[in-house]
Amino acid sequence: MSVRPDTPLLDKVPTPEELRKLPKEQLQELADELRAEMISAVSTTGGHFGAGLGVVELTVALHYVFNTPEDRLIWDVGHQAYPHKILTGRRDKIRTIRQPEGLSPFTKRGESDYDPFGAGHSSTSISAALGMAVANKMADKPGKAIAVIGDGSMSAGMAYEAMNNAKQAGNQLVVILNDNDMSIAPAVGGLSAYLAKIISSKPFMEMRDWGKKMIELLPRPLADRARQAEEYARGMATGGGTLFDELGFYYVGPIDGHNMDHLLPVLENVRDAIDGPILVHVVTEKGKGHPFTEPNVEKYHAVPQFDVVTKERKKSTPKAPTYTNIFAEELIHQAGKDDKIVAITAAMPSGTGLDKFEKAYPDRMFDVGIAEQHAVTFAAGLAAEGYKPFATIYSTFLQRAYDQVVHDVAVQKLPVRFAIDRAGLVGADGPTHAGSFDVTYLASLPHMVVMAAADEAELKHMIATAASIDDRPSAVRYPRGEGLGVEVPAEGTVLEIGKGRIVKKGTFVAIVSLGARLGEALKAAEDLESRGLSTTVADARFAKPVDEQMLRDLAASHDLLLTVEEGSIGGFGAHVMDFLAGEGILDGHLKVRALKLPDAFQDHGKPDDMYEEAGLNASGIVEAVLKALGRNDVGRSKTAAGAE
Amino acid sequence: MSVRPDTPLLDKVPTPEELRKLPKEQLQELADELRAEMISAVSTTGGHFGAGLGVVELTVALHYVFNTPEDRLIWDVGHQAYPHKILTGRRDKIRTIRQPEGLSPFTKRGESDYDPFGAGHSSTSISAALGMAVANKMADKPGKAIAVIGDGSMSAGMAYEAMNNAKQAGNQLVVILNDNDMSIAPAVGGLSAYLAKIISSKPFMEMRDWGKKMIELLPRPLADRARQAEEYARGMATGGGTLFDELGFYYVGPIDGHNMDHLLPVLENVRDAIDGPILVHVVTEKGKGHPFTEPNVEKYHAVPQFDVVTKERKKSTPKAPTYTNIFAEELIHQAGKDDKIVAITAAMPSGTGLDKFEKAYPDRMFDVGIAEQHAVTFAAGLAAEGYKPFATIYSTFLQRAYDQVVHDVAVQKLPVRFAIDRAGLVGADGPTHAGSFDVTYLASLPHMVVMAAADEAELKHMIATAASIDDRPSAVRYPRGEGLGVEVPAEGTVLEIGKGRIVKKGTFVAIVSLGARLGEALKAAEDLESRGLSTTVADARFAKPVDEQMLRDLAASHDLLLTVEEGSIGGFGAHVMDFLAGEGILDGHLKVRALKLPDAFQDHGKPDDMYEEAGLNASGIVEAVLKALGRNDVGRSKTAAGAE
Repeated sequence: MSVRPDTPLLDKVPTPEELRKLPKEQLQELADELRAEMISAVSTTGGHFGAGLGVVELTVALHYVFNTPEDRLIWDVGHQAYPHKILTGRRDKIRTIRQPEGLSPFTKRGESDYDPFGAGHSSTSISAALGMAVANKMADKPGKAIAVIGDGSMSAGMAYEAMNNAKQAGNQLVVILNDNDMSIAPAVGGLSAYLAKIISSKPFMEMRDWGKKMIELLPRPLADRARQAEEYARGMATGGGTLFDELGFYYVGPIDGHNMDHLLPVLENVRDAIDGPILVHVVTEKGKGHPFTEPNVEKYHAVPQFDVVTKERKKSTPKAPTYTNIFAEELIHQAGKDDKIVAITAAMPSGTGLDKFEKAYPDRMFDVGIAEQHAVTFAAGLAAEGYKPFATIYSTFLQRAYDQVVHDVAVQKLPVRFAIDRAGLVGADGPTHAGSFDVTYLASLPHMVVMAAADEAELKHMIATAASIDDRPSAVRYPRGEGLGVEVPAEGTVLEIGKGRIVKKGTFVAIVSLGARLGEALKAAEDLESRGLSTTVADARFAKPVDEQMLRDLAASHDLLLTVEEGSIGGFGAHVMDFLAGEGILDGHLKVRALKLPDAFQDHGKPDDMYEEAGLNASGIVEAVLKALGRNDVGRSKTAAGAE
Repeated sequence: MSVRPDTPLLDKVPTPEELRKLPKEQLQELADELRAEMISAVSTTGGHFGAGLGVVELTVALHYVFNTPEDRLIWDVGHQAYPHKILTGRRDKIRTIRQPEGLSPFTKRGESDYDPFGAGHSSTSISAALGMAVANKMADKPGKAIAVIGDGSMSAGMAYEAMNNAKQAGNQLVVILNDNDMSIAPAVGGLSAYLAKIISSKPFMEMRDWGKKMIELLPRPLADRARQAEEYARGMATGGGTLFDELGFYYVGPIDGHNMDHLLPVLENVRDAIDGPILVHVVTEKGKGHPFTEPNVEKYHAVPQFDVVTKERKKSTPKAPTYTNIFAEELIHQAGKDDKIVAITAAMPSGTGLDKFEKAYPDRMFDVGIAEQHAVTFAAGLAAEGYKPFATIYSTFLQRAYDQVVHDVAVQKLPVRFAIDRAGLVGADGPTHAGSFDVTYLASLPHMVVMAAADEAELKHMIATAASIDDRPSAVRYPRGEGLGVEVPAEGTVLEIGKGRIVKKGTFVAIVSLGARLGEALKAAEDLESRGLSTTVADARFAKPVDEQMLRDLAASHDLLLTVEEGSIGGFGAHVMDFLAGEGILDGHLKVRALKLPDAFQDHGKPDDMYEEAGLNASGIVEAVLKALGRNDVGRSKTAAGAE
């Protein structure tokens, strides 16, 4: 049951302009209503939850103090932006979030003027804000750029690169470090320990201290002596110059991110400061005010739909195990046989299934935080010493470590295993999270073996295969979500490298599928058979190396060869065509077509619908075959088409 | 004239084992000989120079104190490793460095057991060393991993990600921060300023202080109270906890990297410390002992061959302006017409030609340091505010910002312009620096326009075109080195997007070239004509979007269509074939072939030889055509082959 809360104040402020007319005393009340509204909304849609609940007060305070949208407010990752969306004219659509045609679960340019920069991946906000601040400076505009970034996102090198360059923005850049000590997984590493030390070393600052402290920022010191005095003063105030001071920021904090009496005066001082850039360290509680009683960490990141009254979560019963679980199961199995196998995640222990691996082998799992570049080269270092690392990274996030894959792994032919979850379209998370490009960017690399799992049993075999490939790098990609429900063997079998398999034999059309579209290919074949078109379905298994003998045989015995993959142009289809062309096999009358993802960033939606839009389901495959054959029964029903 | 210096001590120590038998008092003398030998060697080969000269003493001290190769010594970037190569059994080959078949200019696995991890790109060493340290720890081996990293490399986020994870390695990880305050260009950003502050704030520590300080590290404190006392003591010693302390390191420094009396005791203490990881801040002078009299910064990074006696540099006279210079010239020209044009480099102002741009428009050039990820998203932020940023990054380094290109630029369709220098093979720098993959990884992205310049005049047009494309991202790639010497217009002309040009008309063979192989394609056409094969040569100009009408026309009027590009599989050839196949144009008897870089990381060599090896010069193109046509006059001379 979805209860619409009473929100008399919130009802009065459809936009930040209206918000800014409220007296300060009403802002906490407004925040309470905003929180209730967000809980009500997420209960109907599911979605990212904890991050938004943690920044309700901060969202209100930022829009109150700063002049959005002229001042650019950039929410790192964007999944903390649900309250921001409610406050910026999108309240009426908030219950469409993550739904097809509905609001994006992240910030998105084009959705609102209040979203100046879209973000689905973490740690981009400071760079983008810095670009905007510098643009304002160059154009002599007074506007500020404010990046709100979580402590977990701070573990990514990109955030550090941006901080290292921030000084040039002067007071036109503000960074709000939203420290909830719990990004997606518990934060990792030295920075995290350091932030904890800052917080534990002293109580939240009192308002009067802040006033005093911020006033010190106002006059730019005219002489070195004055600067030194100021630094000394700041050092005293914060218990030693912070890491952020040392990178060129004015550090203020920590402050209580749920206390309007602390937030407002500090942010006002920050807004009016003459010096900068300023980093405000705000401490918040992720999931604050959540309706669930049990303690939780990673699970609050995103939740399924639930009943606000009973708290019951509406989780659909899975039909089959997820690919993620099958991966974890097989990796644990392999690790039991080979103590050189280790696993690495970049802040996604649960999403990748490595939390299970860690339970089994706590000393052989490494969560490096949001730090994909490091994850891959760290894995390369382990591999150089004879370990067998599985770098387990979503397709979309592996893009962050592309140079490390090329330079540290492939060039050196080190046997790092890439386990690539969320390959292909991902549904509600939309274009920023789609795993579209990995086959293209990996299979073009010398030395690399690239596999894609057609179903959950195949995934087991491929993990076993990757474990066995110890003379070069390899990758296994598999989709988000549940498998097909096929029978899964107790353990995977090592596959012959570069060999595909014929799943169904025919004589006229050959569908060569890479990855999890195999089920749709088989359905398409059934349809085609009913139209009198004898169809072979092959599972390529390997995008690289391609199964040359199988392709030769299929080309020789069929009239049309069609590749199908859940990836972009330049991937499996390109490798197949390049091989066929190079061998002269295309010189004759063989027809060849490559089905792949379209040349567009598809909006979020239901995966099935998105694959239909992409023409990668059974009917899309049938249509492509008929079109290639010049037959005009495209779109006609099976029975109407009849047999030839 | 190349003078071989007298090196009696160096002659006695072919390996570190022999080195470790010397008395400490002789090490400075050995270092002097090593420096003389390195100067002599580089005078005959040219090559990276300043970095190696700066670490001569450090190299001797590290091999003396640590038990290489069991202790893993990793030189960040690897171009500082010339003295290391001389000391580790490769002295007899040091004069082959950068030559075909000779030593790599970087560290390289397989070249020596003393090179445990290859590196051509910066900032990878800490991650790799951490992987090795953790491997040792897991395997219960005592070995240490030592990363030597320059201050410039520290500006890359990857180094920070690694430091943030370093704590787990304990005392098995040592990071030597080689602070020469001058990486390739002068270092940039907050960290750089911070290091300067540390150095200027106090004199180099005396030996006795170090002894005392390091002893404090030996017993692991048993109680918090003891830990606090130690932290207090360390804070006192270094003038406040450093950024590195805060990330979990024990920071020691700064010490004089050219003073053996400082280096040896500190490194010995570091080697024997029970706690860790330890970061040793060593200050060196880049190019120390160089034979040139004039002051210089970036130029000492790498030098051409020179005469040790006269100091005269043997620079070959250029035949034509470099692509880099043409790019800079045109960008300056465009910037004169449009004040929204700005330029961004990641620590390569001179290599990219942006030093010239900066002279013309000092406020519109941004050097962000070695921070490609930030560079691209910073550019996206500027573009979001209406500026027209040229992100000017070598092909190989743009790999570091791949996710930012996808997520921050392409998904948001922001008009960032990528000016991609060093596309294709790069010669002496070898496989780590080859620009092989950019067309593949960029042209697969929706919204992206991808151009490649056939010659220097085309580059001008393409820069003008990129400046004019303001509704989506675009990229222009161009090779290293000199152009063809064609006539260059005073200003570029805006090209029609997605339109190629026919350079030479024929009727039988169509060579469709993308990029700077056009000259070779024209030579090949001449050869083919002499064999009676009428040949068309087209310059595609665009890898994306491909010129569909031109391809249709060529396919309809020729028997063989051959694409040629300086890039990997999955790029231009793949886009052409995919288009032709999708249109049904391959269903008939058209022969199609794609010439591209081979599926291998080609070793360093002369670019011409490397392109010959790749089959991408005129004779390779002719051979591919003849093979495709089934003609057996492959390899025969033109005159012998005669006309058909």
